[in-house]
Amino acid sequence: MSMLKQETEASEVVAKASLARQAAPRLGWLATEQKNEALLRMANALEAEYESIVAANAEDISRGRENGISESLLDRLSLSRERIAAMAEGLRQIVALPDPIGETLAEFERPNGLKIRQVRVPLGVVGIIYEARPNVTVDAAGLCLKTGNAVVLRGGSSAISSNKRIVEVLHEALRRTEVPQDALQLVQDPSRSSVDQMLKLNGLLDVLIPRGGASLIQNVVMNATVPVIETGAGICHTYIDDSADYEMALAIALNAKVQRPSVCNAMETLLVHEQFAERHLPSLAQAFTERNVELRGDDEARRLVPSMNKAEAADWDTEYNDYILNIRVVSHIDEALEHIRRHGTKHSECIVTENADHAERFLQEVDAAAVYHNASTRFTDGFEFGFGAEIGISTQKLHARGPMGLPALTSSKYRIVGNGQIRG
Amino acid sequence: MSMLKQETEASEVVAKASLARQAAPRLGWLATEQKNEALLRMANALEAEYESIVAANAEDISRGRENGISESLLDRLSLSRERIAAMAEGLRQIVALPDPIGETLAEFERPNGLKIRQVRVPLGVVGIIYEARPNVTVDAAGLCLKTGNAVVLRGGSSAISSNKRIVEVLHEALRRTEVPQDALQLVQDPSRSSVDQMLKLNGLLDVLIPRGGASLIQNVVMNATVPVIETGAGICHTYIDDSADYEMALAIALNAKVQRPSVCNAMETLLVHEQFAERHLPSLAQAFTERNVELRGDDEARRLVPSMNKAEAADWDTEYNDYILNIRVVSHIDEALEHIRRHGTKHSECIVTENADHAERFLQEVDAAAVYHNASTRFTDGFEFGFGAEIGISTQKLHARGPMGLPALTSSKYRIVGNGQIRG
Repeated sequence: MSMLKQETEASEVVAKASLARQAAPRLGWLATEQKNEALLRMANALEAEYESIVAANAEDISRGRENGISESLLDRLSLSRERIAAMAEGLRQIVALPDPIGETLAEFERPNGLKIRQVRVPLGVVGIIYEARPNVTVDAAGLCLKTGNAVVLRGGSSAISSNKRIVEVLHEALRRTEVPQDALQLVQDPSRSSVDQMLKLNGLLDVLIPRGGASLIQNVVMNATVPVIETGAGICHTYIDDSADYEMALAIALNAKVQRPSVCNAMETLLVHEQFAERHLPSLAQAFTERNVELRGDDEARRLVPSMNKAEAADWDTEYNDYILNIRVVSHIDEALEHIRRHGTKHSECIVTENADHAERFLQEVDAAAVYHNASTRFTDGFEFGFGAEIGISTQKLHARGPMGLPALTSSKYRIVGNGQIRG
Repeated sequence: MSMLKQETEASEVVAKASLARQAAPRLGWLATEQKNEALLRMANALEAEYESIVAANAEDISRGRENGISESLLDRLSLSRERIAAMAEGLRQIVALPDPIGETLAEFERPNGLKIRQVRVPLGVVGIIYEARPNVTVDAAGLCLKTGNAVVLRGGSSAISSNKRIVEVLHEALRRTEVPQDALQLVQDPSRSSVDQMLKLNGLLDVLIPRGGASLIQNVVMNATVPVIETGAGICHTYIDDSADYEMALAIALNAKVQRPSVCNAMETLLVHEQFAERHLPSLAQAFTERNVELRGDDEARRLVPSMNKAEAADWDTEYNDYILNIRVVSHIDEALEHIRRHGTKHSECIVTENADHAERFLQEVDAAAVYHNASTRFTDGFEFGFGAEIGISTQKLHARGPMGLPALTSSKYRIVGNGQIRG
């Protein structure tokens, strides 16, 4: 019985990925207008069918309550007419973005007369593994279809009723368009096995993008044989140099921590030069405390602000995503650079300084997707960068690094035209 | 005892990767001239020390003979003064190439005044896993150092004496340069365990590049948790359309098969339109037979050329790298496209036709790194493309696709300069 169940599950993932694979070429050749038409119909359908989506969502919410999931998770899971309208609006924004497919990336002629042109093409079939938020279903579908990619979505089981209804609505909308319905697939099997299978679908999936918490991402990175774009964890630092302007340093550090602590580009550790700390740490600490931030300091920070808790060794490697901040006092910029090298996750790092040499050293030497001089790490974001969309923030070095716009969902190919050239 | 041995082995790979990791930042910040100086010294040292390298190589050759390895493998393994001079010359060619590091890829200012610049940076530490040819040791070291990357080399055990001596000579040459010796590491442990360890060195290695046969590449792709750039297997097709010019088709097909059958961009299967086949297959087949190519045909091909062997099902999915060619007669371009979709490896594919619509369909619809109209697939090569170097030919869609020049060994980062911006 359990064998049988597993086989049925196996066939759902493989069958849906195969359908997506077959649909991918046709989708890849569609004109921009055809893809945009489909996206607009999807947006309209979501708004027209909002009642049935909210009804399906209510099932997820009530199951979630039964299972005792947290209020903040329930909030992320829950859909309203307004949230559905926002999802539709997100699709319309994708329509407005330029289509990267077909763009010429390079063009040259060789001495033997071969004309070589490198053009942007879709990746093919993109697998997305994500957690509770049903808006990712719409967002990922829109971004993938705009870039000519078929997509296999595997959302969290807690949102399965919402996701099923959303995809039904989107499929219905696609029926009257040139985009094949099969290009959009939702894996409904809620078991861990369906994720495990997706990780190994070489040949059917061209790339996997995990979106969610650290454990989801680690599972995908460590177990997938399909190429992965790692998005993710951010242990971000702000280093306040001795020459920093106090008001600027205060504003940037507060913004990096408390404007939205739950996200990956929020600060987890503040590094403060000892001279700056001597003058300003007490008032800086007070500003955080007033905003309900728990502070955990090293010995020197606690000497200056005795009310601070003590930072344990593991704290420097923890992504709190919460109102908690580590503070370390350093005696030199080198110590700050070394701390970031050891504890950073290559996401976003900031120096606040009026010293141009120190700024340049920091920008040059810190190995991270985004390095800041005198600005909050919270700007690491596709919309803030002006990309008009965001697939996620890549923390790996291959393919894409930092906020990913539509081009991150593309590959390229060389088109070579000759008149009989052969190699000598 | 075996435990102890394994621990010693474990520590070699980890210890060397750690040294490379520590050396990587310093190497990444060197000026182009400093890196070029080191490459030139490496080239000169190889030539000056050729006798000791040839002597070390003789050990590999004699061990290889004892182990009964094939003559063609012995030939690839063997070094002479001329071959060492060619390796040195390869390094000097890398010196002449433009340095991609530091290049500005994009630069823009946001409405809030943030100045964002995306610059090319090294990947960090590159792991290369390869087979018998000791010239890869020099080539990979040169390409990685030029792009500011530290490199951990794990060559085949059959070339270990040659590789050890080569790396000693290169280390000695680096002693008087700004490039830290630790940036170049050779794993000496010849056991499978050292490869297995490299595959999992997340955090110490930024990327793995396998160079070698299909089984080596598959092992790396299927088992690595470190991101991989897949280079590799090529089951390349040439499709001769009904409107093809006979002389051109003959020249291109012969070149694609026999100019160098052992390489990945050589043709394995010839697809011929039935009308062209009816007129020309016998003479085409004869031209291959005269060049000692064994032909394996489908039923229709064998009806036209009865002397042909029969192609078995597995033949269409075999990369022979040898004087063997599959021939299939198709009734329509659609059948050729479908065959390539099923049996191709997304490497290099060619159509020979005088029909512009068919050419465009082929170039558009075939999903491969390089698609050709009226030219031999043998041109898929970094040097033939004018890149001046080649890390390998990527057959994956992420990061790099097709022949990879120096930019494929780089990543990017965003440098963001503000004057106190915070997110609202």
